[in-house]
Amino acid sequence: MASLESLGEKKIIQIIQEQLDVMPSLVLGFKDDVSAISIDGDRLAVLKTDMLVGETDVPPGMSLKQAARKAVVMNVSDFAAKGVTPLVMLVSLGLPRDFKEDDVKETGAGLNEGAREYGVYVIGGDTNEASDLIISCFLLGFSKKERLVSRCGARPGDIVAVTGEFGKTAAGLKILLEGLSAPKKIEKKLKEAVLLPKARLKEGLALSGTGGLTASIDSSDGLAWSLYELSDASNVGFIINRVPVAKEAVEFARIHNLDPWELSLYGGEEYELIVTVKPELWEKTKREIERSGGALMKIGVATEERRIRLQVDGETRIIKRKGWEHFKM
Amino acid sequence: MASLESLGEKKIIQIIQEQLDVMPSLVLGFKDDVSAISIDGDRLAVLKTDMLVGETDVPPGMSLKQAARKAVVMNVSDFAAKGVTPLVMLVSLGLPRDFKEDDVKETGAGLNEGAREYGVYVIGGDTNEASDLIISCFLLGFSKKERLVSRCGARPGDIVAVTGEFGKTAAGLKILLEGLSAPKKIEKKLKEAVLLPKARLKEGLALSGTGGLTASIDSSDGLAWSLYELSDASNVGFIINRVPVAKEAVEFARIHNLDPWELSLYGGEEYELIVTVKPELWEKTKREIERSGGALMKIGVATEERRIRLQVDGETRIIKRKGWEHFKM
Repeated sequence: MASLESLGEKKIIQIIQEQLDVMPSLVLGFKDDVSAISIDGDRLAVLKTDMLVGETDVPPGMSLKQAARKAVVMNVSDFAAKGVTPLVMLVSLGLPRDFKEDDVKETGAGLNEGAREYGVYVIGGDTNEASDLIISCFLLGFSKKERLVSRCGARPGDIVAVTGEFGKTAAGLKILLEGLSAPKKIEKKLKEAVLLPKARLKEGLALSGTGGLTASIDSSDGLAWSLYELSDASNVGFIINRVPVAKEAVEFARIHNLDPWELSLYGGEEYELIVTVKPELWEKTKREIERSGGALMKIGVATEERRIRLQVDGETRIIKRKGWEHFKM
Repeated sequence: MASLESLGEKKIIQIIQEQLDVMPSLVLGFKDDVSAISIDGDRLAVLKTDMLVGETDVPPGMSLKQAARKAVVMNVSDFAAKGVTPLVMLVSLGLPRDFKEDDVKETGAGLNEGAREYGVYVIGGDTNEASDLIISCFLLGFSKKERLVSRCGARPGDIVAVTGEFGKTAAGLKILLEGLSAPKKIEKKLKEAVLLPKARLKEGLALSGTGGLTASIDSSDGLAWSLYELSDASNVGFIINRVPVAKEAVEFARIHNLDPWELSLYGGEEYELIVTVKPELWEKTKREIERSGGALMKIGVATEERRIRLQVDGETRIIKRKGWEHFKM
């Protein structure tokens, strides 16, 4: 019988989902970034859980405080993608037996730092002994129904856009995991992209207020992978004709003779937002996010044809369904 | 520096709490069984997380389906103690790499079974690879503020009562963990107490509606330990003059020459409710819970003096602050 590794995360979620009774009044699909239920009129309670596991989510060089902060950011990023303000957080911790008092303190400090950065309070939790570090966060917020942006609404002709540049975390992970070198001045930035990720909450909230978005997701599983998720959910394809690659990633790629496209498309652990926008509201949407201090960069267009292609300099390449997936690396 | 084992769970929670900014409008204390925030008028959102860890929470003989179901019951029991109806659940899973497709299926089935037993729907979650089985549940429900029963309200003179008998899980764990034997007819019941625990949700909801409760907790960490928690939170002591011991536990104790009091006081993993009741509302409270199909048994009285004593047959014994605590066994 198939083991976890050969199943992959998507199939595992499907198997579990098949065992579950479906709540009649669910607002978002089971596979969207957050869960939401209607609580009165058009008000929703929005929920999210995401678990950080030491072995797979904490690269060498990441401190406990950074790991705990990252566990929060992972969850906040999904709220950002849906345009919902997170309010409170609970945390279930599995702590290794050899943890010291200072380790516990650092973990608590990282949780608080991550939460407060986004206006969230940690209001409860649970601690346990475990063989590996486990930080399981649970986020709750509230939203008006019409502000929530799902993965499913993209239509052919919609503009595809992102909130930032790509490639730094993939390069940073190559430094931290594979020991690749980089000049001092860019090494710090590349490592920081991995160690101190930021969720685009301000941007996500500004975007959801414009009414211009038709679909949204974060890029935590990689730009390519997330485009496929949007494509599956909305039943559209994409032509991508520009990928904003961070200049540090370009330089790192040049030094190590790597493909900067590869770093940007298949990196993962990068918490930008990928959105589709109604063309007639593009200017307004862009203006609103800029007013909030963020940026929105056009990268392509949604198509009726279900393929996802990269079209640059007159050349067309298929973007592969590849990314970082638990159990399947 | 102190390691986890010597710190104990209470101290660990305290260290983490010291790192956290306190939310101004929190309704319950950080150490209560659930967390709650005011969402409008007198309406509260009530949240709980509790993590099941394979190594420490799943005894030999417990199937995956039972383990997943138990993870739900652990969380529902805390809602029961606070008198709040749980509504939806998210689950973060850490699954061992050698898990097979059928193991995933069983886990999903157990989660659904546990949830539906108490009217809850599983509406989302997250899966990860981990070195041990981790089932981290997050429960959300809503409550009117005046119905929520904290740990803090017990006053001297209040009646202490429980919703069921004790001792079966301690005996069951001795069978499952230490291989002790028992006659067929009671062995099944003792093992079932461990493998198929039940949360007293119906009872908790009936109790919170009476207005008779001053404090409430579940007995998941053991009767003695939970009495100490109530005592700490409410600043009272207790004289206990009756502990309802299950007849199967009495027989098991007799066969193995064990103290049935020990099995009942220090067992843990038993999901009864322990409540304090205003004396003038005792009859009404008891009637209400019986109407719901449950039972309420007087076991003692709250006292101004902070000690917790067992007073039976004219003899007085101090009940020890002992129970099942993570990291300290």
